Amino acid sequence: MRILITAGPTREYIDDVRYLSNASSGRMGYALAQAALTQGHQVVLVSGPVDLKPPEGCEFHSVETTDEMRDASVAHFPDCDGVIAAAAVSDYKPRERVEGKLAKTGGPISIDMIETDDVLAQLGAAKGSRWVVGFALESQNARENALQKLRAKNCNWIVLNHPTAIGSLDNQIELIDDTGHPIMKWAGAKQDISNQLIQWLETNLPDSSRDLG
Amino acid sequence: MRILITAGPTREYIDDVRYLSNASSGRMGYALAQAALTQGHQVVLVSGPVDLKPPEGCEFHSVETTDEMRDASVAHFPDCDGVIAAAAVSDYKPRERVEGKLAKTGGPISIDMIETDDVLAQLGAAKGSRWVVGFALESQNARENALQKLRAKNCNWIVLNHPTAIGSLDNQIELIDDTGHPIMKWAGAKQDISNQLIQWLETNLPDSSRDLG
Repeated sequence: MRILITAGPTREYIDDVRYLSNASSGRMGYALAQAALTQGHQVVLVSGPVDLKPPEGCEFHSVETTDEMRDASVAHFPDCDGVIAAAAVSDYKPRERVEGKLAKTGGPISIDMIETDDVLAQLGAAKGSRWVVGFALESQNARENALQKLRAKNCNWIVLNHPTAIGSLDNQIELIDDTGHPIMKWAGAKQDISNQLIQWLETNLPDSSRDLG
Repeated sequence: MRILITAGPTREYIDDVRYLSNASSGRMGYALAQAALTQGHQVVLVSGPVDLKPPEGCEFHSVETTDEMRDASVAHFPDCDGVIAAAAVSDYKPRERVEGKLAKTGGPISIDMIETDDVLAQLGAAKGSRWVVGFALESQNARENALQKLRAKNCNWIVLNHPTAIGSLDNQIELIDDTGHPIMKWAGAKQDISNQLIQWLETNLPDSSRDLG
């Protein structure tokens, strides 16, 4: 298969210096890319700013903002059989980006934020016969929110993990299907979990998608 | 001398996942620490989250928020002869940090931000016979703003650089004194500039501070 994988955080700039982001290390997405390559698949990796070396052999695209991640993902999805959207995109961005550096006022300020374009929803809407695996990072009502996300974004499955996964070497995930049930649970090093998730996909995808070429 | 050096960005959390930060790599501060160690000084390095290994032989303190950087810096300054404050601290923080992950509302949100405690001003106010070198990252009216910063924060000198320095391997800096004049200019790799800045300090500090022990 040819698999699109998104990884890492995105950054949304308030001015030329300050931005909104999160501590996503990109490790989960890069581990998935490595696992897919090792198992003989082609990988297109679209990654936000992280300190990891892209796995040998992947087609690599570096992005910074959510809009850039959307553009790169939408551009490369048509050539792939499916997508694993492991990136922790910033879902808000400042309404305006100030040129230069915002001067301090001496008092409180208020920053207006708007939602960024929903990358996963756009991929889901355009999937056709492709498959879509989303990631949900939830702290409360986790399974419920994950199922809602799966449905709203037209995913085949959603990987549920917890905020403690961010920046960690390990992870604990549940794979949720469209009935909201956790059909698989894995815990351990992100590379081990990734190997298992790719293997699971290989055996559980509809026949038409399972071509290993 | 025993030199306190601050480096890297700080992070100010909106919730358990999202934070405000900047792309400071910590390279300038770590290069200054390396330069000072190589030239026989003791170094206390207080660093925000970066992907660099602390130079061999420094006393290292890892922090995440501006408050943590203030606490560590104020605690270690009394044992040092001076400070080089190269950190790019976040000077705003959300008024409140939401527990868990802020749910999306479907519409714009507004985030109230207040100024963080001014680490450099606190060190400047407490300096006594110690010396203080600040950093200013300015995009407009650069020298004027740098001089204003030097005075407001009771610095001996201020290193003026431009937002393009952030995350870069190279830098172009001016050393500004309390008359607002650029008394030195250096450009090149951050390690080379750092070596020169430390050497300059060694020969230009008041006699009482110049003890190499």
